Amino acid sequence: MSSNEYTNGNSARKVNFGAGPAQLPVEVLETIQNEFLNFNGSGSNVMELSHRSSAFAKIIQEAERDIREILTIPDSYAVLFLQGGATAQFSAVALNFLNLKPSKTADYLVTGYWSEKAAKEAEKFGKINWVVPKSSKYQGVPAEDTWKLSEEPSYFYYCANETIHGVEIENIPAVVPKDVPIVCDMSSNFLTRPFDVTKYAVIFASAQKNFGASGLVLVILRKDLVENNTNKSIPIILDYKVQIANESMYNTPPTFSIYVANKMFAWTKAQGGLKALNQQSASKSSLVYETIDESNGFYVNSVEKNYRSRVNIPLRIVTNGTTNETLEALFFAEAVKSNMFELKGHRAVGGIRISLYNGITVEETEKLANFMRTFQAKNNSVE
Amino acid sequence: MSSNEYTNGNSARKVNFGAGPAQLPVEVLETIQNEFLNFNGSGSNVMELSHRSSAFAKIIQEAERDIREILTIPDSYAVLFLQGGATAQFSAVALNFLNLKPSKTADYLVTGYWSEKAAKEAEKFGKINWVVPKSSKYQGVPAEDTWKLSEEPSYFYYCANETIHGVEIENIPAVVPKDVPIVCDMSSNFLTRPFDVTKYAVIFASAQKNFGASGLVLVILRKDLVENNTNKSIPIILDYKVQIANESMYNTPPTFSIYVANKMFAWTKAQGGLKALNQQSASKSSLVYETIDESNGFYVNSVEKNYRSRVNIPLRIVTNGTTNETLEALFFAEAVKSNMFELKGHRAVGGIRISLYNGITVEETEKLANFMRTFQAKNNSVE
Repeated sequence: MSSNEYTNGNSARKVNFGAGPAQLPVEVLETIQNEFLNFNGSGSNVMELSHRSSAFAKIIQEAERDIREILTIPDSYAVLFLQGGATAQFSAVALNFLNLKPSKTADYLVTGYWSEKAAKEAEKFGKINWVVPKSSKYQGVPAEDTWKLSEEPSYFYYCANETIHGVEIENIPAVVPKDVPIVCDMSSNFLTRPFDVTKYAVIFASAQKNFGASGLVLVILRKDLVENNTNKSIPIILDYKVQIANESMYNTPPTFSIYVANKMFAWTKAQGGLKALNQQSASKSSLVYETIDESNGFYVNSVEKNYRSRVNIPLRIVTNGTTNETLEALFFAEAVKSNMFELKGHRAVGGIRISLYNGITVEETEKLANFMRTFQAKNNSVE
Repeated sequence: MSSNEYTNGNSARKVNFGAGPAQLPVEVLETIQNEFLNFNGSGSNVMELSHRSSAFAKIIQEAERDIREILTIPDSYAVLFLQGGATAQFSAVALNFLNLKPSKTADYLVTGYWSEKAAKEAEKFGKINWVVPKSSKYQGVPAEDTWKLSEEPSYFYYCANETIHGVEIENIPAVVPKDVPIVCDMSSNFLTRPFDVTKYAVIFASAQKNFGASGLVLVILRKDLVENNTNKSIPIILDYKVQIANESMYNTPPTFSIYVANKMFAWTKAQGGLKALNQQSASKSSLVYETIDESNGFYVNSVEKNYRSRVNIPLRIVTNGTTNETLEALFFAEAVKSNMFELKGHRAVGGIRISLYNGITVEETEKLANFMRTFQAKNNSVE
């Protein structure tokens, strides 16, 4: 096979279908590159600006203004730009909110690798009720009538999209009582679909999937909740009350990542906001799922259809009823020849994983779907 | 006065004497700019690389190799690239090490704003012994024979350089017994002078002063110490044992900041390592202190000479025995006309502050010293 049988064009830029850090729109990177030695007449790179300078204040204020506009975030919610990734928030949520109710218990819906990590981290700090049993393989969400909810939990926690298992939960589960504060890890599907902020107590999302560079996690939370926090032993960088009072600048924030986020929020608006990105996400994921569903079992995604993720699609190649790792290896090799990278599944589950974050275009996804069909046609015929 | 009376050249780049985030060498920025769309043939910006990719592994491994070489760090020490700044380490040190000895007490030498913050943060998690009394103004270090040391503390903590008060401690205080683990915040003078790593238990330094971008803190620590940690309630991003076991990649690290650090460590080596940077730091600070000391009391730095910081020099302009804030305001305005920025002192102390991190050249410091002399000649004559 020639090295460019599947190739469309020959850009030096690679197409990166990895689970994150994710590909960014090239026009955003070009803008940052152009102002790298002299940002906006400041005579400095953004990395060199004091976080107390008016030039940086403008960046973080613009970023907050834009994300408030994109998501219609009311003033009763704080928007924080913090460090430590979603993992730091696993701890922060428990430290700040486990004591919200006399039960000092939180309900965790564990539907994959990340919500499991969050629940285990929270268990260091108090009582955690696992709403559904731990699973050895996550392929959906158990029926709500089987859930074991607490009487009056301090909060209910779930992960809106599991990147490794490809399980996405579109809406807050209806079985959770309306007065229970909802905490949601939206790291991987944030900005890929609209949602109603006011239904949540805390939302967090790490930046390196859909709005930029690692080292930054966005936290959106109800301000009134921090007033009830009685825990005096919270490490200061994880203390929401302190972070709100200091507008994310108790100490030096990750200024460059905030700058990239600012650019990405502006890009999000320029794309047409969540309405447009929601459509793009639907189109892209449909292209891949249709290819899977029309493959007569050559490509297999095992997630219940209601919970199929639009941003992370794990799949296996199956021939003669058996997972074919040889063909999967060939798939990766041929994809690379076609300039498509980072398609290997997470080591915990193996196989193929296609991540379709906002930085991936519909056109790039079409190329991938076409590649998948061509690959199947060439390699399924031997049976 | 013409707008460029003091100006030397007219670069679009500003000279930034701020306390951090600090100015970076323009050649390092240019290299990053040049490879912004395609790092090292990867077809991606470093922000877009998976932290599990071989391309990023090479970056973090090179960074670790270079800093180990620069500081002669033995294998018995771990090198960690973490998030949350030095402030996160204020908590981490206490959470990981307060229980090291049966006393469950640590000794803190508080010599300024940052060590005071560290001590107060540590007090959330256990008993802290303040070795010297809290001061309302920090201008040095009380005599060692007045210190109140604990019988057998878990560790002894100090800050090697206080950025706001301009107090630098060159060596580990001799009065501390040799077997007490030493924890040192070197955020601001890291890589400006040589030191013997093996005399310390933990050293940490945030990147945005002398090796790059905010959002990254380097931690160098004795591996054996984490084995004795019995605290099971440490937030996972602050747990040294976890971070060592996962080589700083328990979760997605701040990849771009690590990449900038890698470039800065290479730059440090190319400069001639710590020997050369130590000489530069001595030369730069001497230029400023000589200007102060030869100003007949026009410029006043109130720190005891043994503890004068080479990297952060706070000073006041004094005329007729009184601090002259009008002249200080004029000083800032004239400096800006000469392309010299961020010279205001911290709001906690006021006045002028000159920060001379590694990204500031000797030539730039000469220009500043000349500016100071010219400014005095013009403005002192009215008395």
